[in-house]
Amino acid sequence: MLSGFSTKRTRDIEVGVGDDCAVARLGDTDLVLCADMLVEHIHFETSYFDPRDIGYKAVAVNLSDIAAMGANAVYLLCTLSGPKSYPLGEILTGIQDACDHYDISLVGGDISRSAEITASVSVIGTRETHTSLLRSKASPGDEIVLTGPTGLSAAGLRSLSQKRTRPMHPSLFELAHLRPLPLLKAGRAALSHGVKAGIDISDSLALDLHRVSDASDVGFELSHIPIVDGVSPEEALFGGEDYELLLFTKDGASLAALLDEILERAAATVIGVVTEDKDLRTLRGKPLPKKGFLH
Amino acid sequence: MLSGFSTKRTRDIEVGVGDDCAVARLGDTDLVLCADMLVEHIHFETSYFDPRDIGYKAVAVNLSDIAAMGANAVYLLCTLSGPKSYPLGEILTGIQDACDHYDISLVGGDISRSAEITASVSVIGTRETHTSLLRSKASPGDEIVLTGPTGLSAAGLRSLSQKRTRPMHPSLFELAHLRPLPLLKAGRAALSHGVKAGIDISDSLALDLHRVSDASDVGFELSHIPIVDGVSPEEALFGGEDYELLLFTKDGASLAALLDEILERAAATVIGVVTEDKDLRTLRGKPLPKKGFLH
Repeated sequence: MLSGFSTKRTRDIEVGVGDDCAVARLGDTDLVLCADMLVEHIHFETSYFDPRDIGYKAVAVNLSDIAAMGANAVYLLCTLSGPKSYPLGEILTGIQDACDHYDISLVGGDISRSAEITASVSVIGTRETHTSLLRSKASPGDEIVLTGPTGLSAAGLRSLSQKRTRPMHPSLFELAHLRPLPLLKAGRAALSHGVKAGIDISDSLALDLHRVSDASDVGFELSHIPIVDGVSPEEALFGGEDYELLLFTKDGASLAALLDEILERAAATVIGVVTEDKDLRTLRGKPLPKKGFLH
Repeated sequence: MLSGFSTKRTRDIEVGVGDDCAVARLGDTDLVLCADMLVEHIHFETSYFDPRDIGYKAVAVNLSDIAAMGANAVYLLCTLSGPKSYPLGEILTGIQDACDHYDISLVGGDISRSAEITASVSVIGTRETHTSLLRSKASPGDEIVLTGPTGLSAAGLRSLSQKRTRPMHPSLFELAHLRPLPLLKAGRAALSHGVKAGIDISDSLALDLHRVSDASDVGFELSHIPIVDGVSPEEALFGGEDYELLLFTKDGASLAALLDEILERAAATVIGVVTEDKDLRTLRGKPLPKKGFLH
């Protein structure tokens, strides 16, 4: 996100800088727009990311932003840079793989040399209705639904960093880090279900929940968070890049059931409730720190 | 451009990778899309580019691609990266300056740390008619119109590289390099005038003319090229980043007159003619090398 910067809203710009995507009108079409980049040494190391993973993940993290708005992704642009010796064409293949998988079209971009590898992706999406999931629409009394357990990506990163090589058959944790799954269907289903507020967990469950609370001017009381074997509580709360969704709704149980049906898994769960007191931000009664995976 | 890659054209994608922009339909709207990046040490040095110039130029080079299609720019996304010590926020200010100047809206993006500075911009534009200026539409007998003299940017780069500092009052050559002018009005006027083929000169007059010839399966005979005082013939032919337009039309003189009126200058000129023989690619009877400013 472009921190410290805000877009002047106009009749045509419904959502500017500050949410997962911008929403802006062009002609008779609602555009949902986002851009995110991956940088070597900050977001990945080539010792354990192959070029196709880099391309795939650069698309996936952007699609997760589209998912967090409840929108559809349609077109994609990318700019890539790296040393002459590095196979940038294979990053492009990874981008194309992800585009094929999610049925979107890579329509243009640019390639340059650089010392460090970078992969920047922009997605042009649209929405079926004139509504979006927004960070600013959580209300007191909303239940907080988490689509699935967090910390897998952080645990995967821990494992990959130790191995310093890209495993031929990555573990589920390692895969969560190398090739995250953007939850496009879940985001759209939540929106159709009447959910108004949502965010994807890119920087950490804790930090992204604080972001929704800041944008909505509310607090939260978390009763528990799901922790899977092999993931530490620290990783589940403060690890980044999980790309699960946090959704806010009056009837959390029915949303969780719907999400599990759509995602064909038993993972969505109500983890807490939104409070009117914006200074009350707790997990089992203790203040939840605002920290996560920042670049 | 994403060399070696092509977009599968569909009913919705009229132009994919391979022209200055993509043209794709979303809902009832024609989108004109492009992305281009600037990288430190490849496209600029911080000794003679201040951060605002970097942001401004990153926008301008993209708008030039929109100009080369005869389209309008509307929304912009950017991703920036650089060392912690570098004022990336000032690059953003330069981007905002250019957006204000050309009346487009910066709606989103991402900022990351990195060792080298990068600025990647994507532009979402549209078109008034259902036509675009294309590289593939030059026809034998077309006159080749150049909107203005080339090589100024290369001469400016030569001067800036010698000074190794950002002058308080840059010369016109230096300004051509630091803050190029995208010719949006000229591109749209040419399209309205019935011109079918065009390109912007990003890599060199020679190289970009060869690109149109390759895409259109034609050749060319150049009679002369305009050279201004202080620019070498080498810079005029093979220097990059001028962002003048090459336009192809049966009546070059009337187009040149129109462009001069619109751009309020006396600069547009017919420099040659398109030939059927695609192997004939000459300047005053001598073969014109296919070389330019490649990154």
